[in-house]
Amino acid sequence: MPEPRRWAYLGPQGTFTEAALRAFPAAAGAEHVPYSTVPAALDALRGGEVGGAIVALENSVEGSVPTTLDELATGEPLQIVGEVHLPVSFALLVRPGTSLADVKTVASHPHAQPQCRRWLAANVPDAEWRAATSNAEAAQHVADGHYDAALAGSFAAARYGLDVLAEDIHDVADAVTRFVALRRPCSPPPPTGMDRTSVVAFLGEDHPGALLEILTEFSVRGINLSLIQSRPTGEGLGSYLFWMDFEGHVFESRVGEALMGLRRICADVRFLGSYTRADGVRPDIRRGTHDHDFTEAAAWLATIRCGATER
Amino acid sequence: MPEPRRWAYLGPQGTFTEAALRAFPAAAGAEHVPYSTVPAALDALRGGEVGGAIVALENSVEGSVPTTLDELATGEPLQIVGEVHLPVSFALLVRPGTSLADVKTVASHPHAQPQCRRWLAANVPDAEWRAATSNAEAAQHVADGHYDAALAGSFAAARYGLDVLAEDIHDVADAVTRFVALRRPCSPPPPTGMDRTSVVAFLGEDHPGALLEILTEFSVRGINLSLIQSRPTGEGLGSYLFWMDFEGHVFESRVGEALMGLRRICADVRFLGSYTRADGVRPDIRRGTHDHDFTEAAAWLATIRCGATER
Repeated sequence: MPEPRRWAYLGPQGTFTEAALRAFPAAAGAEHVPYSTVPAALDALRGGEVGGAIVALENSVEGSVPTTLDELATGEPLQIVGEVHLPVSFALLVRPGTSLADVKTVASHPHAQPQCRRWLAANVPDAEWRAATSNAEAAQHVADGHYDAALAGSFAAARYGLDVLAEDIHDVADAVTRFVALRRPCSPPPPTGMDRTSVVAFLGEDHPGALLEILTEFSVRGINLSLIQSRPTGEGLGSYLFWMDFEGHVFESRVGEALMGLRRICADVRFLGSYTRADGVRPDIRRGTHDHDFTEAAAWLATIRCGATER
Repeated sequence: MPEPRRWAYLGPQGTFTEAALRAFPAAAGAEHVPYSTVPAALDALRGGEVGGAIVALENSVEGSVPTTLDELATGEPLQIVGEVHLPVSFALLVRPGTSLADVKTVASHPHAQPQCRRWLAANVPDAEWRAATSNAEAAQHVADGHYDAALAGSFAAARYGLDVLAEDIHDVADAVTRFVALRRPCSPPPPTGMDRTSVVAFLGEDHPGALLEILTEFSVRGINLSLIQSRPTGEGLGSYLFWMDFEGHVFESRVGEALMGLRRICADVRFLGSYTRADGVRPDIRRGTHDHDFTEAAAWLATIRCGATER
């Protein structure tokens, strides 16, 4: 499976999403194509204009995470082939010569403002906040003279001819944004032992205890979930979907059996991909849930079904 | 698989076990061979003297149930191919002409006495109880003049030339003894939709939560247990086995997958058989755990593993 030569991202240049794309090894050397919204980037991938796309999935500082979830859960299928984690950390970008005392307006994507609220209150208490469609666009507006300062990644400064007046701005320490790299449906990348799998499970009818049933499919096979997020499907009250990320790869027996369990009990299941996790964690596989345990147990079952009991 | 022509049972003639054997369709027309103990009957089967054996497994009124469990769990393997339920109900057998006032001694197997204690206290309060190795042997001792009365099945009266002085004696209403029919290891009888499966799971190491893990293997696949019984294995403190009876047949997908789950997490699992249940109950199979659900889910998993996502 050759790597795509064109990758879509949420532009303009200088967004956190572009920084994530630049940090994704499979996109090195490829052309990076900005789109103005997450759905536009995903549609470009679906339509074949690009071969890959990168979007924010968790803790976004700029992209709309609910939009991404809903697009991937219910739009024309795409597949996650990798992920990138970026620390959440903003810089205050200004035109050269501007001091903190000069800052009367600060622009950013609406997601960035609450993450810097305390810093803003302490350092530019009198400045007014202005919304932009992206942090990079906010930087552009500062360069154009519309606003005094922008909250954006420090990497955006050079691109817009701005200075970094303050760095490492964030109210919450160690916050990370998680981005996922997408392709059109494809054979999953091979397992590395440090893998994550994403699925969306649809509950058709309102079934008491359904979530417990779903979680049990994972726990009985020793699989830890890293994310579970419920969303209404938009098809009426009581109709929900669950986005779930969990450890392991679809090629592992424990994961395959858990996925088949979901498939059996849910109205529908969408496989969103198995891919190398960005945090480098290699999970312990619980006693009795290694691939060789499944292989041995299947051989034993075949034996007792044909009447040849071990002695 | 032709039916055995010789069946072993716990004798002498007139025991409840013989009555169970006479009620077991597959043994109709075969020779019924009495043995003096449960282990002797099982060894006769193992050694090929007989082709089948029937022993009490639950709520026994005469055979030693712990002995049966331990023999089947840890002795040379045998396989359960059927079961018989008999109501627990005794008769007071006496020599012709004996009245209640004449009864000074009552003999029975030690298991029968506690099940008739209240009846005895109310009806023959001054009689002393005497132990026999079986209720049928107690009847023989009454016929021989050693004791005045025996607690036994009413079917034993004719065989020993005794009269039934009282019938339907039992302290607990609706009690049932469960017998199992055994053969040497063989291909299981075909599923009927009214099946039961028996296994023994061995826990090698003392593992916290192991029982919960085992029960979860069943519950996640919608399988109800009808019996669970722990027994020490005799191999040191903390070494236990669990005898488990549950609904379904080893040929069902949900049962096969649960058995493989046990195999993966237990030190050892002994398959004891799948067979038609005597109570005629046809369990509801839970949504998502029918064979066709497993077949469909496996086909779906194969699809996503090779990269062909449904649209």
